[in-house]
Formats: sequence, C-alpha cells, structure tokens
Amino acid sequence: MKAGEDKLVKRVASVLARKGGLRLALGVGDDAALFAPRPGYETVLTCDWFLEGSHFLPGKDPADSVGWKCLARAVSDIAAMGGQPRCFLLSLALPGKVALEERGRGSRWLDEFLGGLRRAAQRFACVLAGGDTTQRGEILINVTVVGEVLAGRAIRRSGAKSGDRVFVSGVLGEAELGLQKLRRGARNSPKNDRARRKHLYPEPRLALGQWLANRKLASSMIDLSDGLSSDLPRLCAASGVGARLDAAEIPSPKQPRTGSKPLDVLGLALNGGDDYELLFTVRSNKASRIPRSFQGIVLTEIGEITRERRVVIVKQDGTAKPLLPLGWDPFCK
Amino acid sequence: MKAGEDKLVKRVASVLARKGGLRLALGVGDDAALFAPRPGYETVLTCDWFLEGSHFLPGKDPADSVGWKCLARAVSDIAAMGGQPRCFLLSLALPGKVALEERGRGSRWLDEFLGGLRRAAQRFACVLAGGDTTQRGEILINVTVVGEVLAGRAIRRSGAKSGDRVFVSGVLGEAELGLQKLRRGARNSPKNDRARRKHLYPEPRLALGQWLANRKLASSMIDLSDGLSSDLPRLCAASGVGARLDAAEIPSPKQPRTGSKPLDVLGLALNGGDDYELLFTVRSNKASRIPRSFQGIVLTEIGEITRERRVVIVKQDGTAKPLLPLGWDPFCK
Repeated sequence: MKAGEDKLVKRVASVLARKGGLRLALGVGDDAALFAPRPGYETVLTCDWFLEGSHFLPGKDPADSVGWKCLARAVSDIAAMGGQPRCFLLSLALPGKVALEERGRGSRWLDEFLGGLRRAAQRFACVLAGGDTTQRGEILINVTVVGEVLAGRAIRRSGAKSGDRVFVSGVLGEAELGLQKLRRGARNSPKNDRARRKHLYPEPRLALGQWLANRKLASSMIDLSDGLSSDLPRLCAASGVGARLDAAEIPSPKQPRTGSKPLDVLGLALNGGDDYELLFTVRSNKASRIPRSFQGIVLTEIGEITRERRVVIVKQDGTAKPLLPLGWDPFCK
Repeated sequence: MKAGEDKLVKRVASVLARKGGLRLALGVGDDAALFAPRPGYETVLTCDWFLEGSHFLPGKDPADSVGWKCLARAVSDIAAMGGQPRCFLLSLALPGKVALEERGRGSRWLDEFLGGLRRAAQRFACVLAGGDTTQRGEILINVTVVGEVLAGRAIRRSGAKSGDRVFVSGVLGEAELGLQKLRRGARNSPKNDRARRKHLYPEPRLALGQWLANRKLASSMIDLSDGLSSDLPRLCAASGVGARLDAAEIPSPKQPRTGSKPLDVLGLALNGGDDYELLFTVRSNKASRIPRSFQGIVLTEIGEITRERRVVIVKQDGTAKPLLPLGWDPFCK
C-alpha cells in the first residue's frame, strides 16, 4: 500500500535524482538533503515562486516550458552573483489528478513538466536534492537553488560607484514580445521563433556571470527579471547612486517586417520582464576589457552611474527624463 | 515612488533581518543570499509548504501561530538529521490588502504573522537570509531552512537494523487533539492548554537530535510530521526492515476528566499528525544509554526493528496486527 504522496515523490525522484550526484551526500527521500560545501567557497541561496495563473497558464505555456523555466529563473539569481548552481529543492503542489495519473499514457502534464525540468537540471549542472509535495487545486511551484561562489568574489547589487559604466547582456524585451505572441495565440509564429523561445526557455547567463566574478570585472550586478526600468533602480538604491541611460544604445527587439504595425521596441526593452539577462557595472578604467560579445551573447554599454540618485534616460534628441519603474510588479497588476 | 513588492520586502526585512547575523555574509535585498559554511560541517537543506486552507485556516489559526509554525515544521526536518538550523528563505504570496496595508493600525495579519515568525527565528537561532514575494488570492508560504551538521554525523532514515530498539520523544497525538479542540471552537479550552499549544506552537526537538547525533546514539531517525503510522513505515522502507510496536508503550494523550466522552487516545497517537516529535532507533547494546527523559521531554521505548519487512502493532491481549498508514496524506483526504 503506497500512499499518494510517497508515490509522487518516487516518480519525481525517478526522473530527476542523479545517483552519486555531484557533491550531494544525501538526496531525495530523507528528512533533509545533505550537501558538502567546497573549501574556499561561499554558499549562494535563492528561491522563486512559479504559480499557475500568476507566472504561467497551463493552456498557453507548454508543461515542459514550466519545468524548464521554474528552475532557470532561480538559477538566474545565482548567475547574477557570479556563482555556479549545485543543487535545488522542488516544492510542488498539484491537483490530485495531475499528481497521481498513470505515467506514460500519451502526453501528460507531469511527464512533460518533469522532462523540461530534467533538461534544465542537466543544462545548468544542478541536481535535485529534495523538496516537498502536497495536493492543491492549482499548480504551485517553488524552487530553491543552492550554488557556490569563490569566497569574496560574489558580485552584489551594492558595489556601483559614480562614473561606472552600465552594461547589459543580450537583447531586452524579447521575452515580453514572445509572451505577447503566445497570448495572442499567434499560430504562425514558428516553434523556433527567437522571442517565443526566450519567453518559454530562458537561458540564465551563468558563464558570463562567473567570468565577470572570477576576473573581478563587475562592480555590481543584478539579473533582469522584472524589466530594466524596475531592476536598474534596485541596483542603484542598493549602491546609493543613480544612473543615466542612453536610449539609443539600449538593445531592443527588431521591428517586424513591413506589413505589421510598428512595435514600441524601446518600451519593450525598458519594461518587459522575464529576460534573465545580466545588468552590470564596470569601473571606467576596466570598461575596455568588456568584449562586444561573450560566447555569442552581445554585451552593450547603455549608460553610466551618477552621483545624483535619480535614474534618467536620455533620448536621441538630447532631452533627459526620469525612468519610471514600469516593469513587472505583482502588487501593481 | 516605492513599488509594491519592494515595500513588502522592506517591511519583512525590518522585522526579521538581523544585522551582522551569524555567519551570513549577505542577506535580504540582493539577488541571492550568501552563507559561509563552517569547515568540517555538511550543509542540511529542507523546504516545506504551509498553505491557507491546506495547512492552516486564517479564521481558526492565529496569525502568529502561522508565522511560528511555518518555520518550526521545516526546522524539525533539520532536527531529524541531528543538525542545527542556520538561516532560512521565506517565500510569501499574499493578497494585496494583506501585503500592503499600513502597519501598526490595530491587530493586522501581517504584523502578527511576522511577530510569530520572529519569535521562532530567535528561538531556533535561524536568521532570515532571503526569499521571494508575490501577490495571490490566498496566503501561500514556503520555507527553506539551511542547517549544518558535523560531517559524517547526520542521522538518516536508512540506518535501522533488525534488533534495534525504537524510541519516540514526547507524547504522540497531542497536536491532533489540539487541532480538534480548535476546529470545534472549544472556547473553554484555556490558552495554555497543552494540546492546543502543541498544535499552534510546536517545538522541534533540536537539542535532542543534536545530542543523539553528536554521541552517535541513534542508528536512524525521522521526525513525526504525518503521524507514527505513516512515518515509521517510511523509516522502515528506507532501512529495508520492519518493526513491531508494543501498543501499551505508545505515549498517548491523557483521557479527559470524567464527564467527557472517552477519546481513542491510541488512534490519536498512531495517526495524528503535526507532533514534530522524533522517532529514532538505537542498537540494542546502546539502548540503556537513552535516558527516561531529555531536557524535560519524555523518551519512550515503543518497540523493535524486525528483519521481516512489515510494521505490526501488538495489542495488550498479545495479538499482532498490521499498522496501516492512516496518518496525514495530502493526496488521500
């Protein structure tokens, strides 16, 4: 007689638990997991909600994207510290029919979810260490990621100084554009559409974050989860500084081909969430050491840090206006 | 212009974040927390759901109990490994009116919740390291606790062997009895009623767990969260053994005074959840080293581990019957 919860835990573990995984002394199936920290490293800890209706829609977002993204967005916080992920805890609340349906009969939500999560875990070298399961009317997910960073090398939000250059990785606003396409049900957008893929399967910038940390190139860093206009003020507040951005330099999505209505690409780049790119600052005397691209990801200088504690954006006509935090805020929907 | 989510994070941090807390290099307010592990220790990781409607009822359970208990139950998993808690991550989803109401005007849910959580954090020496917040129609809580245990000393579920003695701490079934009293709205039960207090403010057995681990006295251990009849089979399955319990020895709640209907106290002790007592096994040649009580908590030998992989309970008339897992299972409500 196998109880419902034990059955679900066994199923999750059979897909995700790696035997002899990394430096994990004890994984799924005990009261808690055991992790052997490496000497000379600090432990990096983060957790993230991923909730049906708030962060994903089961009818619109494929289950394997839900699995991939719930881990990717938490891993992105590790990337933003310059760390490397090691293991994760998965808290899963599921409706009974999703949790206990038999496996392998056609295309089921839980199979696909676990498949996407396994692909992400392999990609990010982040092994399942434990978690908690319960029953609930809606799908609720919370992921905790444990990572490591060389002691003293973590890049914080608080290190920016006046005169530092502001950089971002990648193109901003693409994930929001992909979300809009999916919500419109744009059936003509191909599966490999860049914006669609970025919304469904974001790639945290782990290698870039570690490279910046190991070479001591960045004075501060944050990942862009809510949007540049919301996240840059957080970095500035933590550092006690302001910033001046150059609107013309902000890497934005391409305008669609002729025939479509032109997009507000700057608005997408400033306020679109879910990009999981890195925003970082570099002392001006080190700025030339930042390449134009890193492992195929474009790196762009978009402005500078100011002593005056305001965040402003300078338009192409030279006028400056305050950058309002119009990115994602769950309490201002 | 302070965004809604930033305001909530600031409020939580102002109540809970301890300055220069323990060995926490970086806490609330960055992308992730930094924790400096102690040489010679392993890291213990656990997480737990605590959901409105499933695990607590806002109308019945006081908000400060919700705050205390969401941390206490996760800390109990650390106790069950013989570890000591160090820091925790708090994931909180709240209705907008609960999250953003002004502070200090009379008795508010969030103030009371944070007060109970702060008391628990102080009691367990477990500091807030970070977390995630979002808006939701119902109150959703997930707590991750990070602890430490001397390398090689963690007590697992899998170490029990045939012939080991089975012990439990405390009295079993009291929390379930307290829950029943509260759900009946028993207004005549005094605030300091033992069962009521155990349901609302459970005390994880941290000192006992660490004492057993440091002296290498327990061969296996689990905390009793779902009930003895559900949790003992989990320990047995992990160890590849069975167990024989002596019904007469199981520490059960006292019968109420004359005038009330007699309670099924054995049923409460076997199947009641939320006790957060420790169930542990001891090699028979070490059993005499287990005292009758530890720091005021009674320790009782209730049976022994058997080679045969069944869990049976022997009644006072000498008949043995299988112990069915009738404790809490979220998928068998």
